[in-house]
Amino acid sequence: MPISPLVDQTIAAIGPLDAEAVAAAEARQGVLTKPPGSLGRLESLSVQLAGILGQPIPQIAGKAVIVVAGDHGVASEGVSAYPAEVTPQMVFNFVAGGAAINALARHAGASITVIDAGVAVDLEPQPGLTIAKVGYGAGNIARGPAMSRDDAIRCLEIGINAANEQAAGTNLIAGGDMGIGNTTPSAAITAAITGADVATVTGRGTGVDDAGLAGKIATIRRALEVNQPDGADGLDVLSKVGGLEIGVLAGVMLGAAARNCAVVVDGFISGAAALIAWRLCPNIAQRYIAAHRSVEPGHNVGLQAMGLTPLLDMDMRLGEGTGAALAMPIIEAAAKTLAEMATFAEAGVSDRDDG
Amino acid sequence: MPISPLVDQTIAAIGPLDAEAVAAAEARQGVLTKPPGSLGRLESLSVQLAGILGQPIPQIAGKAVIVVAGDHGVASEGVSAYPAEVTPQMVFNFVAGGAAINALARHAGASITVIDAGVAVDLEPQPGLTIAKVGYGAGNIARGPAMSRDDAIRCLEIGINAANEQAAGTNLIAGGDMGIGNTTPSAAITAAITGADVATVTGRGTGVDDAGLAGKIATIRRALEVNQPDGADGLDVLSKVGGLEIGVLAGVMLGAAARNCAVVVDGFISGAAALIAWRLCPNIAQRYIAAHRSVEPGHNVGLQAMGLTPLLDMDMRLGEGTGAALAMPIIEAAAKTLAEMATFAEAGVSDRDDG
Repeated sequence: MPISPLVDQTIAAIGPLDAEAVAAAEARQGVLTKPPGSLGRLESLSVQLAGILGQPIPQIAGKAVIVVAGDHGVASEGVSAYPAEVTPQMVFNFVAGGAAINALARHAGASITVIDAGVAVDLEPQPGLTIAKVGYGAGNIARGPAMSRDDAIRCLEIGINAANEQAAGTNLIAGGDMGIGNTTPSAAITAAITGADVATVTGRGTGVDDAGLAGKIATIRRALEVNQPDGADGLDVLSKVGGLEIGVLAGVMLGAAARNCAVVVDGFISGAAALIAWRLCPNIAQRYIAAHRSVEPGHNVGLQAMGLTPLLDMDMRLGEGTGAALAMPIIEAAAKTLAEMATFAEAGVSDRDDG
Repeated sequence: MPISPLVDQTIAAIGPLDAEAVAAAEARQGVLTKPPGSLGRLESLSVQLAGILGQPIPQIAGKAVIVVAGDHGVASEGVSAYPAEVTPQMVFNFVAGGAAINALARHAGASITVIDAGVAVDLEPQPGLTIAKVGYGAGNIARGPAMSRDDAIRCLEIGINAANEQAAGTNLIAGGDMGIGNTTPSAAITAAITGADVATVTGRGTGVDDAGLAGKIATIRRALEVNQPDGADGLDVLSKVGGLEIGVLAGVMLGAAARNCAVVVDGFISGAAALIAWRLCPNIAQRYIAAHRSVEPGHNVGLQAMGLTPLLDMDMRLGEGTGAALAMPIIEAAAKTLAEMATFAEAGVSDRDDG
């Protein structure tokens, strides 16, 4: 079923990996000065990057983190340890450069774009902030849909455009999220798409206690009962139990993949967005690099459904794209070993067959 | 029992972590703009760095990888998939900049020092190579000791001096190894010090087959029977079943810790060196940061004995310091989040108590 011209064209542009580049990268890994396979996941990552970028020796030319903020009506159900006013406060922290994602993106050499997709209050326009409000927060999913189908399409288009507006040469793109209450829709999305039980995909988010966790699980069950999302239809899931920032993040991933960028998937909320984009375009999973395993239990359920194994396991649960930014130097290292190492022949080193 | 003036003074200089810096770093982590604990291991790592460097807000000022090469008489027992001539060939590859450690150290912004501690042939002197031969390879441990007690002390002193010769400001130091056959003494060291069974700490190294693995296990058992190392005495273990490069690496770790550097522990061979330094100086474990979990099964046994949990698990088994160099950007990221993030008060963000 067509979604919109921009979304449909974007999805159509996401093909399989470049098989020639994959084969060339694999062959080169076999003649570099090391026992074959001894660099482990760095080797497989370098081969994946070759296929994604369509380059036999992939070069990470530019890195970007797109942080998207939105509020959630469901926060009024008491699912978060923090008040909703923190969402706009943190947006200003991102713009001012004081959040964890700022420190980690600077460290990785990645640019940051901050998008207001649906913060519940009007934010003062300022340099470094893109205001692209689809609404003043998503609807309370415990009582009705998060948004209309048209608004879900708008979210995807905003994300696709944000990916397309990245600087020329940018080929490693991560999304990051900010939205008090957003582990709740992420758990609902993960349950709807993977079929997992709500209790197995629901965690403590920013830190609710035992009673809070039980209430959160009940709220998510209610959201699924009230809305009846069709897990086979990514757009239906997004509109019924998603969130505005989650929809934009799914769009960012589609847009990035369509321009042959590697998509670095952050934690639980980004993982939920990745699930939506994957339902809309199964090919995209080959262009995902799962950055880390979040403490949120639902994250790994979503990654496993997509066949992804995270690079890092650092007990993180912050979101914002922090896990993705932390993984960027590892991803870049994989590309550099393939590009910069000497071959056995170049270095005059005996291979095992010579021994 | 005194070892030598330099070694004894070095060990005496390695005290507990700076408790005031630890407390200050912990307190700061609690007021940065994120839910407490949400950066997971980055938080605990930043606190450990504060204690090691003696700085409430630790700054990684300089990074170094010291790669040490040595041969092993035991290689003649057929324990490796590669011929011993690869050791000197790889030394020249390090000096020329074409090995994996070169690519990864450049990426991490770390300097590289290459030391010949005991390659079996004379290497032509050249810029970038320190020749500090203690012997032409370690003795065949399946038939006798690896080296004399005096040579073991010389190895430690060479390593201590190499750490002390690093540029002023260097405070993150890793060792790396090169030596065909050196997973065999590393397994013997790990078994001797931890008490683990040889079969549980012996792996395929650069890639021996099933028959090769069985023979390697038998060789290591014979080495322990012939030499009877005292697992409580690090110097005895080093001299009886160690290796020249392993002894120098243990010295590097002692020297680095004594000058309040964080010691990044690479894979299995570096882990064996870390076990020797730990037996000589139990305080040093607090200054270790385990970079990654090697595919070699003995690595994790050694790390667990020292109470260390590796940062990365990338299926790597190359040595050279590659896992350590790969972890350096992660370690630096931990310091930067503590240093660069805004506090709740600075950013005007509501803490959970305000909600």
